[in-house]
Amino acid sequence: MAGKFITLEGIEGVGKSTNVALVDSLVRESGRETLVTREPGGTALAERLREIALHHEAEPMPELAELLIMFAARCLHIENRIRPALRDGVWVICDRFTDATYAYQGGGRGQEDSRIATLEDWVQGGLQPDLTILLDADPKVGLQRAGSRSSPDRFEKERIEFFSEVRSAYLARARRFPDRIVVVDAGAPLETVQINITKCLSKVL
Amino acid sequence: MAGKFITLEGIEGVGKSTNVALVDSLVRESGRETLVTREPGGTALAERLREIALHHEAEPMPELAELLIMFAARCLHIENRIRPALRDGVWVICDRFTDATYAYQGGGRGQEDSRIATLEDWVQGGLQPDLTILLDADPKVGLQRAGSRSSPDRFEKERIEFFSEVRSAYLARARRFPDRIVVVDAGAPLETVQINITKCLSKVL
Repeated sequence: MAGKFITLEGIEGVGKSTNVALVDSLVRESGRETLVTREPGGTALAERLREIALHHEAEPMPELAELLIMFAARCLHIENRIRPALRDGVWVICDRFTDATYAYQGGGRGQEDSRIATLEDWVQGGLQPDLTILLDADPKVGLQRAGSRSSPDRFEKERIEFFSEVRSAYLARARRFPDRIVVVDAGAPLETVQINITKCLSKVL
Repeated sequence: MAGKFITLEGIEGVGKSTNVALVDSLVRESGRETLVTREPGGTALAERLREIALHHEAEPMPELAELLIMFAARCLHIENRIRPALRDGVWVICDRFTDATYAYQGGGRGQEDSRIATLEDWVQGGLQPDLTILLDADPKVGLQRAGSRSSPDRFEKERIEFFSEVRSAYLARARRFPDRIVVVDAGAPLETVQINITKCLSKVL
């Protein structure tokens, strides 16, 4: 039987890493094999593309070039890692996926949704996550938490207003795909967040 | 006054490097400043993308990912180097451009022309070369010449049939854009080739 595809989304500092680990352990406890991965990245070449997209201080990055790099990396990730794993019955747990492109490159940087949708169609065909957990919190809370970590990347340096746009775009995606995307209040105490994530997972486990 | 944009195209071994140098010296002799550049590449980040597209033996490269990387590199090249140069009155002489994408990724690898056209429209807007010199020769001649050079890259390892497809796609482009693309017989003796290139250039000089 094919594996299932679970993505976690949200702005910086909402606790994606901690909760990716929680989802992974819950799925493994249910007896499934898992693959934990992330975007942009997830394969050796896609990680090199990630490096170019996130760290390029010496040269301006046109927003359209960033968008194309994101989907080139996604294409490599899907064809070389995600689809083969799902076919083998492995459950794939991914830190960010295409909802992040709509949120960051679309909502944040103003790339047209219709362009993102065109690339999504080319690169994914029908592939969509079975479940997306959107960890939602006020950008001020998220950035405060993220700021306490080392070496902020380019996206983490962006302003609060940028993250407000990103958050709005994420919430709009959740309203549009209510069957796939579950919004979890990431501003709540960790224990509450994890109880809610466990409930979400019962939908697919 | 804005500079002009001249591209040289053709399969491996048709003498692009030699003739790029010829075009450069002819344009400079006419008193214009020039920028000689190449695709994929032409900026530091675009050269890193070139590296990923051309040398990736450790991981399969989906054709669509290759296409997206090519246009991401082109976007960087246009915005950070080509457009600024043209605006400053510099003539840009480029070893390969979008006709190569139609020829290699389209004709050679079978990516749909309509996808290439969509990306061309997004990335280039109205930007097109003022003159394209297509150096045309039988793939057997070209590969023989290219084979005498060191370290063949991935594309140079492809078979003769692949290059026949690429050549056909190039010639189809020339038939479609007869005002922009001039076909020069690269199988002729170098002196004849260079006389013909000098004639082409008189159209824009």
